[in-house]
This record gives sequence, C-alpha cells and structure tokens, in this order.
Amino acid sequence: MPYRSPVEDYKFIFENIVGFSRLAETELFHDSDMETCKEILDAAGKLIDNEIAPLQRTGDLQPAVIENGVVRCSPGFADGFRTIGEAGLIGLAADPQYGGMGMPLSIQNAVNEMLNGSCLSLALAPLLSQGQILALENHADPWIKRVFLPKLVSGEWHGTMNLSEPDAGSDVGALKARAEEVSDGTYKIYGRKIFISWGDGDITSNVCHLVLARLPGSQEGTKGISMFLVPKFLPSESGELGNANRIRAARLEEKLGLHGSPTVELQYDGAVGWLVGRPSEGMRAMFTMMNNVRLGVGCEGVGAAEAAFQQAFEYASVRRQGLTPVGNGSGAIIEHADVLRMLADMKSRVFAARAICASCAFAADLKKSTGERKWASRAAFLTPIAKAFGTQTGIDVAAMGIHVHGGIGYIEQTGATQFLRDVFVTAIYEGTNGIQAMDFTGRKLADGGEEAATISEEIKSAIRTADSLGRSELAKNLHRADARVSEALRWMLDRRDMDDRFAGATSFMRAFAILLGGKFHLLASLGERRLGPRTALAEFYLGRVLPEVYGHCDAAMEGAAKLRRVTPETLAG
Amino acid sequence: MPYRSPVEDYKFIFENIVGFSRLAETELFHDSDMETCKEILDAAGKLIDNEIAPLQRTGDLQPAVIENGVVRCSPGFADGFRTIGEAGLIGLAADPQYGGMGMPLSIQNAVNEMLNGSCLSLALAPLLSQGQILALENHADPWIKRVFLPKLVSGEWHGTMNLSEPDAGSDVGALKARAEEVSDGTYKIYGRKIFISWGDGDITSNVCHLVLARLPGSQEGTKGISMFLVPKFLPSESGELGNANRIRAARLEEKLGLHGSPTVELQYDGAVGWLVGRPSEGMRAMFTMMNNVRLGVGCEGVGAAEAAFQQAFEYASVRRQGLTPVGNGSGAIIEHADVLRMLADMKSRVFAARAICASCAFAADLKKSTGERKWASRAAFLTPIAKAFGTQTGIDVAAMGIHVHGGIGYIEQTGATQFLRDVFVTAIYEGTNGIQAMDFTGRKLADGGEEAATISEEIKSAIRTADSLGRSELAKNLHRADARVSEALRWMLDRRDMDDRFAGATSFMRAFAILLGGKFHLLASLGERRLGPRTALAEFYLGRVLPEVYGHCDAAMEGAAKLRRVTPETLAG
Repeated sequence: MPYRSPVEDYKFIFENIVGFSRLAETELFHDSDMETCKEILDAAGKLIDNEIAPLQRTGDLQPAVIENGVVRCSPGFADGFRTIGEAGLIGLAADPQYGGMGMPLSIQNAVNEMLNGSCLSLALAPLLSQGQILALENHADPWIKRVFLPKLVSGEWHGTMNLSEPDAGSDVGALKARAEEVSDGTYKIYGRKIFISWGDGDITSNVCHLVLARLPGSQEGTKGISMFLVPKFLPSESGELGNANRIRAARLEEKLGLHGSPTVELQYDGAVGWLVGRPSEGMRAMFTMMNNVRLGVGCEGVGAAEAAFQQAFEYASVRRQGLTPVGNGSGAIIEHADVLRMLADMKSRVFAARAICASCAFAADLKKSTGERKWASRAAFLTPIAKAFGTQTGIDVAAMGIHVHGGIGYIEQTGATQFLRDVFVTAIYEGTNGIQAMDFTGRKLADGGEEAATISEEIKSAIRTADSLGRSELAKNLHRADARVSEALRWMLDRRDMDDRFAGATSFMRAFAILLGGKFHLLASLGERRLGPRTALAEFYLGRVLPEVYGHCDAAMEGAAKLRRVTPETLAG
Repeated sequence: MPYRSPVEDYKFIFENIVGFSRLAETELFHDSDMETCKEILDAAGKLIDNEIAPLQRTGDLQPAVIENGVVRCSPGFADGFRTIGEAGLIGLAADPQYGGMGMPLSIQNAVNEMLNGSCLSLALAPLLSQGQILALENHADPWIKRVFLPKLVSGEWHGTMNLSEPDAGSDVGALKARAEEVSDGTYKIYGRKIFISWGDGDITSNVCHLVLARLPGSQEGTKGISMFLVPKFLPSESGELGNANRIRAARLEEKLGLHGSPTVELQYDGAVGWLVGRPSEGMRAMFTMMNNVRLGVGCEGVGAAEAAFQQAFEYASVRRQGLTPVGNGSGAIIEHADVLRMLADMKSRVFAARAICASCAFAADLKKSTGERKWASRAAFLTPIAKAFGTQTGIDVAAMGIHVHGGIGYIEQTGATQFLRDVFVTAIYEGTNGIQAMDFTGRKLADGGEEAATISEEIKSAIRTADSLGRSELAKNLHRADARVSEALRWMLDRRDMDDRFAGATSFMRAFAILLGGKFHLLASLGERRLGPRTALAEFYLGRVLPEVYGHCDAAMEGAAKLRRVTPETLAG
C-alpha cells in the first residue's frame, strides 16, 4: 500500500479538537473557512500521495552526492520540489503580496506533515524555505523582500539556515563567522558553517542562505550576532541571476539517514550578503521563525511516524505466520495480540502527537490574528512539547514499525528501517530535545505555571464533559494522571535552584506531553456520537500509554542532588 | 577512548550479586573458583580490547560482500576469529574431551558480552558456534562429535543455525526444507534457507550448518522436523576436508547494521548431511541450545549498550558546549544536568541488564552442576527476560548515546549510530521480543507463578537486609514497585483466557525485568560498605528507572477485550 496522506484525520482534528472555524471569525483569516481548508487538504493530499511519495525510497537509495564541489541531488527531487512549489504548498501561510496564500499556519502545518510522511528528506527543503520566508517577511528591507520572497515562495529558489560551526552547535553564541561592511551597503561574509541541511544542490537555480555572523567589535555571545542573507548566485537589482557568490560546498556529511537531503559544510570566503534586521539583532530575527520551525520539526516526527505506521499496518495485514486463534479469521499477524498492541500503540501515539502539533499551530494562528497575549503564551508553551514529543513519537513509532515486520524489517529493502534512520535527527536538530526540555521547565514555566494550570483546567473541563455524557469510565485515567502531573508541576515551580528543574526536565515535559495527548484522545472520543473507532483508540491510549506519566513524574521530582552524586568517577567505574 | 571490557563489573557481580563461589562447591565446577575466574576475565578482557575492538568499525565500513556466490568477509575478521578461537574463548564452557575448558556458562557469558561490546558483528560467529557445539555435544553420534567438535571449539571451523525460510520465520513449524535418507546413512538436503547469520564466508576453512528439515512422511508442524549437520565442505572419516557440498550462497542481505556479519540465503540442492538426534526430534534438539543462545543474544544487547555508553561518556567528558554553572568545572557537556541524566540512565540500565543475564547464566550453571529442579526453573524463567531486556537495553542505550553526541552523533563517522544499527536486530532474531513475552506469560507462568513468587520473596529479603543496615530509604521504591508487580502477576495468573495475558505480555515482562534490575541495584549498593558509586547509581535507577513499572503494570492489566476493540478498521481510519 503506498503512502496516503492523513487528510481525514486532519479534518477531524480541525473540527473536533482545535475548533478551526474560529479562525474564519478573525479578520486576518476570514477566507479560511472549513470548506476551503478541506479543499486544500484534499488537493494537497492527492498531489503528495501521487507525486511526492514515490521519491521516498529514491532519496535513500540514490543519495545526494558531491563531486568537485558540486552537489547533485537524488533523481526526481528537482521535479518533486518544483511540483510542491507550483502547487503553492511552500507559501500557504506566506504573505499574498509576494505570492503566498495568506492561509493559517494550521493548514501549512498539516500539509507539511503530509509532505514529511511522503518523503522526509525532500520535505525538509520547503520547511527551511518557510522559515526563511518568515524571517525575511519580518526583518528584511523592501528590496530583499521584492527580489527574494516571490522566488522562495514559488520554489524557484530555496532557503537554508546557517547556524552551526564546529565549536558552536547547541551553543549558538560561540559562533565565529564574521561579516565586514562594504561601502555599497553589502557585507562580506567569512567563516565555516557545518551541518547545513539542503545547504547546496541542484533542485533550484539558486540557494539562499540565512547566515549568522559577527560584525567587527560586536559583543561576545548571542548578543553580538547578526543575520545575513547570502545567496549562492547574486541577483541583479531586478532579480536576474548573476555571478556565483564566494561560497564553497566543502563536503557532504554521511548520515544515519535523510540521505536525500544533502547536509553540507559551507565555506564563506568573502561572500556577498545583505543584513537582515538590525546589526547584532540576528538572534532576535532567528527567534521570529524559531517557534514555527521547531513546530515544523515536530511535524517531521509525526509525518515519519504516520508513514511508518501505515507500512507496518499493511505488512501485518497480509503477512501470515503462526496460528492466530483470536481475530477476524484472516490469519494475518495483525491478529496476534502483541502485534495488534504495537499497531494500536503506534496509531494512538501518532494521533496524540498530531493533535498537539495542530493545537500549537492553531494557537500561533490565533496569536497572529487576534494579537491576544493568551494565544502567544499558548503557542510558546506548546512549541517545545510539539517539537520533542512529535520527534520522539517519530522515533518510537518507526522503531516499533521495524518490530512489527519481524526479521525482514531489519533488511533495508523493506524501507521499514529508513523511517527510523531518517527521523532520528529530528530529535537532535533545531534544538535537541534536551534543550526543548530546559526551555519548557525554564522559560515556559517562568509565568509561575499559569499556562500549564490553564491547560490542566481544560483537561478537567473535558473530563466533566465526559462525565456528563456518561463516559466517566473513559475519563478516569485522565483524571488521575492530571492530578499527578499537577503535583509534579507544583514541585517544579517550588524549586529555587534551576538545576533541580533541569535534572527532571526531560521527564517532566514528557509527562506533560503524554497527558496532553490523553486530553486530545478524550476529546476525539467525545467527538463521536456513538462509541466508535476513535473511542477504541482513546481507550487504548488512556489505558496503556497515559500511565507512563507516573514513571516520568516520579523521575521528574528526584531533584539534582541525587543526580549529581553520579559523578564522572561513578560513571567511569 | 577505545573500548574497555567491563571486567571489574563482572568481578563485582560474580562476588556480590550472584554468589559465584557457590559453583566451585559443586563437583562439576570445582576448578572454577573465583581466582581462576578473575584470571580468565582479565586475560580475555585484555585480548578483546587489544585485538578485537579495532575490528568494530571495519566491519561496518567494509562489509562482507558476495561475488559469484563467494562470500568475502571484512578485512581482519578472519584473523580476529582465529585469535578468539586460539585463546580458547569459543569453548570456555565446552566439554574438555573435545578441546573445551569445561568452565561455567557464567564465565563464557561474561566473555561473550565483552566480545559483543568490542565488535558485535564478529562476536556473533563464536556465539553461533557455541550453540552448535552444545547441540552436537547433546545429540550427535560419536563420529560427528569426534570430527566436528574439536574444530568448532578451536575455531578452525564455525557453525550456523538454519531455521528460517520465506514462509517460516517466527513459525518454525511451517518450514518446507526436506531431507532424503541415502543408503550409506547420510541424508540429502533440499530447500532454501534465509537470514542465515554467518551463513558463509572466509573466516574459517569450513562452515557447518545445523539445518532443520523434514523427512518424508513426517508430521506437519514442529513435530515433523529433524535436525541435520550439513557442512560446506565434506570431511573425510578422519576429518580432512574433501569436496564442496551442494550448498549455494544465493545472496547477501543488505541490513540496517551488523554489516560485518554476512546474512546469507542458502540453497541446498541435495547437500549431504548427517542426522543429529532422532528423526522428527529436531525441535527438541534445538531447544537444548535455545536457552543458551537466547541468553547469548540478550548479552549482545548488553555488550552493545556498554560500548555505546563508553563512547558517549567519553564524548561528553571532552566536548564543551554552553555554560555549565554546576559541575566539576571542566566545562564539558557532562556537567549539563540532562546530559548527566542520560549517561546515568545508560549506565544504570547496562548494570541492571548485565546482572540479569549473569544470574540467568549462573542458574543454568547450577542446574547443570546440581541437577536441582529449582535451578532449571530459575534458568528457564530468566531466559526470556534476559533476552528481551538485554536487547531492549541495547537499543535504548545506543539511541541515547546518539542523543548525548548531539548533531554529530547523526554523522556516521562518529560510530555512535553503528551501535544502534547493529544492535537493533537482537530484539528480533532468536525469537522476537514479543515471542519472548508470550513465552514468559504463557509457559513461564505455567507453574502457577511459583518462580515469580520466589523472586519476589528474594526481593523482600533484600529489602529487609537494607532495612537492617539502615538503608530503608534506598529500598523504599523497590518495596512499592514489588507490590505493584506482584499485583500484576496475580492478575495474569487469574486470567483463564490466554489472550488476556498476551495482550499485556510485553508490558508485564518489561515491568518484571525492570523490577529485577532494581533488586540487583539494591544488592550492589549493599555490597558497598560505605555509600559509594554503586549506591549513587542504585539511587538513580531506583528513583528514575524503576518507576517505569507503574505504567507497564497498568498496561499489562488492561486485558484483551479493550485491545480487540481496536480493529483493523479502526487502524485504517
């Protein structure tokens, strides 16, 4: 069975979980009613399933290569990217002034997940362009907007983010690339950037880099960083391509997966660039798009998980092996309780992660369209959860997909392993999941736990609804889990020493994410008039996945003192 | 830092956890005192670290290849295998009559784990030989023993297991390979066998296959299966190599990992073989070695986990990134609470899994040397736990090792990914972990939970010891977890319908394994006179890993009815 975009699940989530119709009540998104949304999802899903999904294996089997400094991408990727661009899927949420469709991020995000599921390595290219578009929309001067944005939106060119250097990965502030102002208002960029996703290639006629670098005399750390737009080929005033810039693709990385996505080391030797935003405010400009890109990475995890689930489900439905005394009589391995358990686990986690990402996008849309502080707070709060839980779900589900296949899952030709290899990096890049957890327990609880408490109230409200509909049994586990997570929240908030929080950060954020997934499963069940498939899945999640919060909460509250007794000497012993 | 065999940890486990000295009190193992054991571990560790560990990356970067039906192995692997054989490491537990050392499995098992950590793909070859040696010792006729055993023990030849066929993987009973008796007492073997680990190659002068096949007129299913020894080259009466047998290496599989271990499809076209054991009793002969091999696979997981931990620890100790306000002032990322948390988690799981495997081997030794039923029962009970928990620990720890590395962990050149790619299959082969869980909740609870209850009593006894030593605080979590797992055990035992047990099998077995790991961590702490590094690690495990049992127990007791409401239609939706 080839990949099928989860169009119906998104329609259900928009209608029953996030309340999408509310967006059309705002001035900004008054055109984005549910009907329009459905049409876009249907059309995008069809295109993605037919045109993009066939590239998934190609990217893995015929990776991007570098020869004499020229990067050639996997066969069909250029056509695939053009198709995505021409269908308007890069700029669904971009400014219509530059060719975008001005739709909510919710829709862009849904389409991104479908792209991710169809071919993760290619889908990363439009995601990076979207980040760049957002940065330029917010911070670039008019000429840059006029020349670059239409081409980035249409997919004629694509964009990248250049942060990492050998000694500046998670610690962006340690970067050393430098920029010198030239008399004509441009800058010359010098330095070495590593791990640049889609950092070069031949899928478009130009590659536009957003480069973080330092101006002379700037402060140390993140406060001295500026952002520059540095294209591979320099455009004329009117946008025609001119000379090659002084950027060299020095090497391609050999990675565990994502072979279709060239990861490039770039050497800047006085490359011409333009300042984006103000001097030394590069990190601020970067933050503009960071939430969107982190959410986008969360959806990479969800997309990979969806695709891995679909393939495992298909395999388990046709493969026969051993007696299956219970089941529907097909004799396929899906009838074995433990195989069914794995598939139900995968599906239920995918839904939880998808709903979390969708509600994060929805909050960002309401933030943008209403300007209300509460939505800004909600979007910010959900971002690290969406990023970490989405990507970890990608890894967990892809790994389980291999197990469902049994021995043949370990053989590369099935493609089951590719999902795991491809998705693994999503937990690491764009801020490791450990960094997301520090953000969550640090910055995101700096409101004294207000946002977390609001969400807990919403959970209680969903439970009351369930009670009133005679579905108390279903909500029981959620009630207990919410109480425990609230206890862990209070513990976190009571800590003076941030090290105590950080020692339990990953566990606490994971508990919170799993709880939130439980809320969405309950809402999904409540969205069914009669108890149906969504209730069956909710029962599974609430009974078998949700209880993981207890272990995580216990771990979250262990504190730093005990952890620090595990010294390097202990570990060496 | 290159790989270092965990020699000291094994000495500690032998002395403080399993009570190794008891073995020397038996007649069979009266030579195997603790001093001898330590000498062997020291010598083996040194050899492995120096001679075998350098092959780890070679196997991955220069995989085995097939050309015109000839399999060539990775450079250095033949020398490596010869070194292992000449050092006596293949036959530590084999019968001295045929060149073995007649030592306890405990020692062989420890050395196997060290080999696994040093180079998993090569270490699989001696493990398979050990399985074959055991089968031949127990079931082969004298001529076979005399000709084959000395060469398998010395490493001049090596052995394989041929079970799987395209339609007979987990369901061994579905196999179709057939055997015809020839007038001279030999048999001709026909059929196609797939996924044969180390199924061919050039590391030895001969490859000996134990092949499961059917004699004419035999029953369907597992009861009609016989076992044959079928060598690549036919030996003369006195053991000299003669003609090539009619076995063809048809293809090599491309796998996620273990590239140094050739996985071969073998075509038998009337190959000459000898019956091992009686006709149609092949599965019984297979079961003789199954427990040992399953334990051996569990130790593959532990070895890979140990190696992945060592590399991550080393990286985290030298890589600097970001401010680390708390710690010992090195500025390395190990000072970040979340990185330290990952390393402590890895180390504590490795110890738990190692102790479980070691006590399984120890029980097998006492079974063999005392013949007491209780030790047979203990060994059988611990085997699926050791296999599943050991291998899952390998996967979990290897994955966490990549995370510790951050972005560069995703790059193949670090080798961090190899641990994950290599170890993944251990959860699948030799009976998937799902099958282990069915074995555990089915066959291994068929004693009415007696063995499980005995272990729970031992846990309570360890807790009482801790109480008496004033370490109640440390034991508190174990007490609570034991109570909960006991509850889940009673639930399991109360089920009439096996489908209820199987629906929760994986969760329950995992809970039991984690609990057992908690017991061993407590014992390790009690083995320290003053609170030291083992107590710090025990505190970590008991506080942060052990609480995972609550989620697993909840899931274990959900039953089949709810699970089966997740129908294929639900999953398709």
